[in-house]
Amino acid sequence: MPLSIDINGDAGESYGRWTLGDDASFLPHVSSVNIACGFHGGDPSTMRQTVRIAKAAGIAIGAHPGFPDLMGFGRRMMTIAPEEMVDATLYQIGALAAIARSEGMTIAHVKPHGAFYKACSIDMALSRAIGAAIAAYDPAMFLVLLAGPGADAAEAAGARVAREAFIDLDYDAEGKLIIERVAKPRDPTVVAQRAVRAVRDGKLTKIDGSDMGVAVSTLCLHGDRANSAEVAKVVKETLLSNGIAVAPLK
Amino acid sequence: MPLSIDINGDAGESYGRWTLGDDASFLPHVSSVNIACGFHGGDPSTMRQTVRIAKAAGIAIGAHPGFPDLMGFGRRMMTIAPEEMVDATLYQIGALAAIARSEGMTIAHVKPHGAFYKACSIDMALSRAIGAAIAAYDPAMFLVLLAGPGADAAEAAGARVAREAFIDLDYDAEGKLIIERVAKPRDPTVVAQRAVRAVRDGKLTKIDGSDMGVAVSTLCLHGDRANSAEVAKVVKETLLSNGIAVAPLK
Amino acid sequence: MPLSIDINGDAGESYGRWTLGDDASFLPHVSSVNIACGFHGGDPSTMRQTVRIAKAAGIAIGAHPGFPDLMGFGRRMMTIAPEEMVDATLYQIGALAAIARSEGMTIAHVKPHGAFYKACSIDMALSRAIGAAIAAYDPAMFLVLLAGPGADAAEAAGARVAREAFIDLDYDAEGKLIIERVAKPRDPTVVAQRAVRAVRDGKLTKIDGSDMGVAVSTLCLHGDRANSAEVAKVVKETLLSNGIAVAPLK
Amino acid sequence: MPLSIDINGDAGESYGRWTLGDDASFLPHVSSVNIACGFHGGDPSTMRQTVRIAKAAGIAIGAHPGFPDLMGFGRRMMTIAPEEMVDATLYQIGALAAIARSEGMTIAHVKPHGAFYKACSIDMALSRAIGAAIAAYDPAMFLVLLAGPGADAAEAAGARVAREAFIDLDYDAEGKLIIERVAKPRDPTVVAQRAVRAVRDGKLTKIDGSDMGVAVSTLCLHGDRANSAEVAKVVKETLLSNGIAVAPLK
Repeated sequence: MPLSIDINGDAGESYGRWTLGDDASFLPHVSSVNIACGFHGGDPSTMRQTVRIAKAAGIAIGAHPGFPDLMGFGRRMMTIAPEEMVDATLYQIGALAAIARSEGMTIAHVKPHGAFYKACSIDMALSRAIGAAIAAYDPAMFLVLLAGPGADAAEAAGARVAREAFIDLDYDAEGKLIIERVAKPRDPTVVAQRAVRAVRDGKLTKIDGSDMGVAVSTLCLHGDRANSAEVAKVVKETLLSNGIAVAPLK
Repeated sequence: MPLSIDINGDAGESYGRWTLGDDASFLPHVSSVNIACGFHGGDPSTMRQTVRIAKAAGIAIGAHPGFPDLMGFGRRMMTIAPEEMVDATLYQIGALAAIARSEGMTIAHVKPHGAFYKACSIDMALSRAIGAAIAAYDPAMFLVLLAGPGADAAEAAGARVAREAFIDLDYDAEGKLIIERVAKPRDPTVVAQRAVRAVRDGKLTKIDGSDMGVAVSTLCLHGDRANSAEVAKVVKETLLSNGIAVAPLK
Repeated sequence: MPLSIDINGDAGESYGRWTLGDDASFLPHVSSVNIACGFHGGDPSTMRQTVRIAKAAGIAIGAHPGFPDLMGFGRRMMTIAPEEMVDATLYQIGALAAIARSEGMTIAHVKPHGAFYKACSIDMALSRAIGAAIAAYDPAMFLVLLAGPGADAAEAAGARVAREAFIDLDYDAEGKLIIERVAKPRDPTVVAQRAVRAVRDGKLTKIDGSDMGVAVSTLCLHGDRANSAEVAKVVKETLLSNGIAVAPLK
Repeated sequence: MPLSIDINGDAGESYGRWTLGDDASFLPHVSSVNIACGFHGGDPSTMRQTVRIAKAAGIAIGAHPGFPDLMGFGRRMMTIAPEEMVDATLYQIGALAAIARSEGMTIAHVKPHGAFYKACSIDMALSRAIGAAIAAYDPAMFLVLLAGPGADAAEAAGARVAREAFIDLDYDAEGKLIIERVAKPRDPTVVAQRAVRAVRDGKLTKIDGSDMGVAVSTLCLHGDRANSAEVAKVVKETLLSNGIAVAPLK
């Protein structure tokens, strides 16, 4: 069976007067897009525009719910009760679902954003609650989480979990993801080699030079770097030239 | 054929720490509830709580989208391009739909809130755009609007429009609705008599004492008066004792 | 020298259409008011109204800055960099100062709200940064903090710190404050006895029945209980009848 | 007496993760900066950063208060009662004043932003209320408004009004300003020639090619064009080479 991998990219992160990323250039190079849903970025009209770009690019769309923190772009940790965050997550999923429906699209996956994503990897009560809520809302919907105990907990709660690895971010010596405050340009070739290695060998190199094992069904790329489109293009081409297909989760 | 009328009530207007109205007492006396969707009131957890109360009361639920103006409770007029307000409306409908779905409920109607409601009655481009968007989103969904040219325009654009009259607000001498900044208690008997007359005779008395004709399929009651529950109770009882059934739109 | 103590009360926590507390009844019984500044509650017009009530009551006014979390009323912990929270704090102080100035009043103190208050008691980098910023902004302005290491750190950074104790909240067995999600009514006599004991004996009873020492220059009362005004009235009368004056910080 | 004119530029319009304009390149070419105060753009830390850039550039700083509409960047008309908008304006002025004070700067002027600016030129009750409030807050503070009846009304209410003209925007045949939704690049030479003509001859060419008279004490330049810095540089140089000094209002 030939190797195949999903590449998911964050997009739709503009807000009102403010533009972030170049989604029209970036999205054709990924297979799934995580669309900001208004809490940390992405106003309703930006959401529609992003759905249209994704539809034209023929890629799968997903919701990218965040903490209610526009000023902090959802990257500041907040302590929100799991049941409240479940409600806030469904709210954001539904908001995108209605806009997508009016464009003839449906939501294939959900991926928490920023600090909410991180919280799901360290707060098991939260990841369980989110996993159970997604499973109840739509059992076919993928929940994309960092491979690890949070993903395991969400899966045990019933969700169809897709584990992911980051090829355009670094992992510290303990294997923990290092979040960037502001996304810097990355060397496309380095990111592409990490992608091939993660998919083919199940390995990623940590910041100290040592390896860590990763079992992934999707690779993440960010859309808000100065060279995001170029990185995505090189990653996809490199995967293809290494015999690895790029296709949405299934 | 026996007379029947829908009573729609605004509810779910609390927000975070702030409580507005007593929905548990109010909702059992109406047949449809307009649930605030986060832009002018109603956070995600309040939305869920309101859906639960409505489900327990056996009434129909609807979305009550507003302008993005929490500080002004959506009661301050805003000039928003029709296509942007379409997106903001679908966003709010979808947000409620997802929370309702997780409670096993579906949305039966949409009713714009406050200044957005007023804008739909005076800006034909807006009411046409909203009407067309609702029709495309779900042709079975009712769009509740003030009887008048805005409702006509939305209907011409394809929406299933339900015209409404206000029995707990006054109309000025020209037949225009007088919006209250803060809802005051109303005499339940007076409101109930207005309800019976509107349904049976198609007439409402204006503030100058003269009559105006109204063709209504739903009557509106507000949930944020000190005596909202009592008003609703008396209205429903009075309708029933006058041989008028109270039931959701259909 | 006769005993004297400040009583500070939170007020101005309404927002737009939503009313919280009965400030006009509550404020005449305290000597200092902490006014919400828009981030967790308190819109600009509510702020002005609260300043007017305080001016009429002859009490000192202070800023009550919070985390930017209206939906959570500033009671959800957020991880915000100290330098960003310094800017957000000055922003809120200044906003209130301008409104107060237009009413002929000046700000006497600053007291962080909710989770921000708690963060100042556990994150020394934050309390140092806030202390230094307040000292630089206005060396005469009091910074009201929970007696403990956070208060010590802010004082070491140059701020004029006023240590406070809570007489209408409980302390756990380890002497840590137990925050209420929603403020319940409290027995005025019990709160008043705690006040007298805290001022006269420097002691408060913890929830396990044992005593803890407290060195306080201000006592806190909340304005959002159903019986906040009554509690404040009884506390003030009881202090006075025990020979303890109630007066602003100086 | 040699000719001298103020050039005021909008800046500090970034928000959280989103950057707008290149203030560090733009501000050295103007003499006064209008700093966004958080309601339509400009979070507290962006405000501080902008104050620092202005201080380094040796220019005067002013508050640029807007309608509470982050999603619409304050460019959507809102109907807000004059007394509420007075409170919202003082709130924003004070917020900036406190941050400026912590950088050793004071606010020299206030200029309403976007739709609020436009509202001040058409709603005399609003411009009178804002004028009176600024006069009461600080009689030395300039209130920058479009030359016209709104400016006259604010002046009659006691404010120290500075009338302005726009050299990087167009006026329609009736002499009304045409607001851009998104600022496009402009030809620096054309803008510069408009500047010289406005100051020396008191004339601006309207979009239909005819002239209108303008009596201005400040010229406005926007900071959110792709070539804002270049435009400002050429305008300033052209004014200087035509014997017109560029200096803050006084």
